[in-house]
Amino acid sequence: MNIYADHAATTKTSRAAIDAMVDCMENCYGNPSSLYSVGQQAKTALENAREKVAKILNCDPKEITFTSGGSEADNQAIRSAAYLGAKKGKKHIISTAFEHHAVLHTLKKLEQEGFTVTLLDVHKEGIVSAKEVADAIREDTALVTVMYANNEIGTIQPIAEIGKICRERGVLFHTDAVQAIGHISVDVQRDAVDMLSLSAHKFHGPKGVGVLYARKGILLTNLIEGGAQERGKRAGTENVPGIVGMTAALEEAAKHLEEHRKHLIPLRNRLISGLSKIEYSELNGDPENRLPGNVNFCFEGIEGESLLLLLDDLGIQASSGSACTSGSLDPSHVLLAIGRLHEVAHGSLRLSLGEDITEEEIDYIIESVRSVVERLRAMSPFWRDLINGKRPHVFKQYQTQLLQ
Amino acid sequence: MNIYADHAATTKTSRAAIDAMVDCMENCYGNPSSLYSVGQQAKTALENAREKVAKILNCDPKEITFTSGGSEADNQAIRSAAYLGAKKGKKHIISTAFEHHAVLHTLKKLEQEGFTVTLLDVHKEGIVSAKEVADAIREDTALVTVMYANNEIGTIQPIAEIGKICRERGVLFHTDAVQAIGHISVDVQRDAVDMLSLSAHKFHGPKGVGVLYARKGILLTNLIEGGAQERGKRAGTENVPGIVGMTAALEEAAKHLEEHRKHLIPLRNRLISGLSKIEYSELNGDPENRLPGNVNFCFEGIEGESLLLLLDDLGIQASSGSACTSGSLDPSHVLLAIGRLHEVAHGSLRLSLGEDITEEEIDYIIESVRSVVERLRAMSPFWRDLINGKRPHVFKQYQTQLLQ
Repeated sequence: MNIYADHAATTKTSRAAIDAMVDCMENCYGNPSSLYSVGQQAKTALENAREKVAKILNCDPKEITFTSGGSEADNQAIRSAAYLGAKKGKKHIISTAFEHHAVLHTLKKLEQEGFTVTLLDVHKEGIVSAKEVADAIREDTALVTVMYANNEIGTIQPIAEIGKICRERGVLFHTDAVQAIGHISVDVQRDAVDMLSLSAHKFHGPKGVGVLYARKGILLTNLIEGGAQERGKRAGTENVPGIVGMTAALEEAAKHLEEHRKHLIPLRNRLISGLSKIEYSELNGDPENRLPGNVNFCFEGIEGESLLLLLDDLGIQASSGSACTSGSLDPSHVLLAIGRLHEVAHGSLRLSLGEDITEEEIDYIIESVRSVVERLRAMSPFWRDLINGKRPHVFKQYQTQLLQ
Repeated sequence: MNIYADHAATTKTSRAAIDAMVDCMENCYGNPSSLYSVGQQAKTALENAREKVAKILNCDPKEITFTSGGSEADNQAIRSAAYLGAKKGKKHIISTAFEHHAVLHTLKKLEQEGFTVTLLDVHKEGIVSAKEVADAIREDTALVTVMYANNEIGTIQPIAEIGKICRERGVLFHTDAVQAIGHISVDVQRDAVDMLSLSAHKFHGPKGVGVLYARKGILLTNLIEGGAQERGKRAGTENVPGIVGMTAALEEAAKHLEEHRKHLIPLRNRLISGLSKIEYSELNGDPENRLPGNVNFCFEGIEGESLLLLLDDLGIQASSGSACTSGSLDPSHVLLAIGRLHEVAHGSLRLSLGEDITEEEIDYIIESVRSVVERLRAMSPFWRDLINGKRPHVFKQYQTQLLQ
């Protein structure tokens, strides 16, 4: 059996997206800035894509800027809002401790430039409180940036509530919706979102393409200077085939959103229930309020990396933290943010399911994880000490820590 | 007949590039940061591409950073060198008046940040003098950035000479080689280049991918913060299919470079000779020292835009200036930089030939341009005044201006 269960890291580009890209490269290869027919065909393809994306997000096509991906969109959104705020003397930014590094590292840079950043707690469930956002807003707050759904533990944040608060308080609100778009319903009007980032390769679109939505009137700061593409806000010849491929994938995802959700949620819950039966295991993040395909567990006494490699041998591709940091030895900042201890965070497993996953595959995953966890624990001195009572049970420690 | 003669704006993605991309999207769709097999396959594809690109440029794979295109590479190169210089108190940058806007607009931003920029003259021939570069270098010069070949008039700059001077004087040297790579021989060792930008879609690779070469030891400034991709210098999941497609196109271009050059140069010269016979026409840029496929003319008394649209009707796709500025009403800054008057610069035509162009097509272009120019002049009051002696001959004015 072969089960790719790391869709949060990246998805396989869909047939529709590949076909749209190839068709565009073969028949619509002009530069959209060129005046002649083949250039204008490319321009039309680009603008049609913009309209379709705008329709799905429920915004105006002029509010869509195509980027090279989610990270670029996050960087540009946050810098733009920060510099707009700074012009009015507002240099305070609110975010959360478990944002993607594209957000956190940009905020770190802005701190070096004199901005102040408040990172809100996401609590044990991995959900930020809208009330705490409201309480954190100051006179000089330029921006609130909170991800739509977490990339590791899949928890869905109260975006519409936060959006409403920000709108009322006159503070710009950005959301990194990279994990949400194509998987759960997102609507920038309903959610009162001012800026939003998405990445095509998370919903079966191509790698290297993304979108920055910015509400009309929000002046973007260029990360890339040059030609007048994207209303002068993002220079460089537009990646028309990539944009067209992304749009095909987004339309498919939007069309089947409910169907996929209904298919995935019971299977996700079956997986959660199955893995919960492994002793000394604990689900990370809220059991209900999470992405339809996301399951994330900690297993005491094992190393995530070994777990992944043995699962790969059994035909299951999964991850330990986010793919972007998998080369790093640090434990996941997301798991630390929800209060996990270092030792436990190292033994984490993220399974992010594809829309075509079957019950049989779910059961195979459960059995495989159980056998691999047992095998690893059998070799682990940490585990032997734990069950022999020589080391404390770390989930217990965690509980105690939270109570203090 | 249908002749796409705007290869400097963009090229059609080659069969080899498309096939490589599709194969990658279908079979190698993992995230290169993932530990399991399908992730490591993507990682291998990425690193193989890096090695191949490095070999063609004659550098170390570690010196290659993949970007979303030439503009991003230009921006990152220039900002990196500027900030490195600033740390040592060096805030002077030398460039030329006819660089691409990705360079010029970045320099403009750096001026606002306190840098001083010297833009060198490119003279009537469109070639910067290496001696003038040497003379412009000051104690506080952080960077010299000169394009390898101009995007509008195709003139090739004395890059190896400038490189040698910069190396001797201890000044970083960047070249925007977007128009050169895949068309003429480029070698970062031979040319003593410290940083170089290229863009895949200019040599039959896909849009949305490029390369920044930066010599070992040059610390890059991130434009995009986030994950640790590209040695932590360019965050965002790598566009593996795009990179693989670019590499396939670059290998093809490098393999056939001499063959294409030998085929193109006589045909380019035939085109230049044919268009020179149209009265009141003048070639822009040096007649010999230019890209094998580049022809650029000014025709008195006509508007470039009308010329392009009528040529398009005859099946010939060409451009007036660079594609990036075609929406703008301003005359080309490149043509102004070589001393053309506004009126003449508006009547410019760039033909950038594909490698498969035939003699028959060249002759068709010559006849088509001649007939369209005659037709437009017949309706032009400016032209009537000119031939009736009521307005001065503007090429003559230009000569006079240069003599003053």
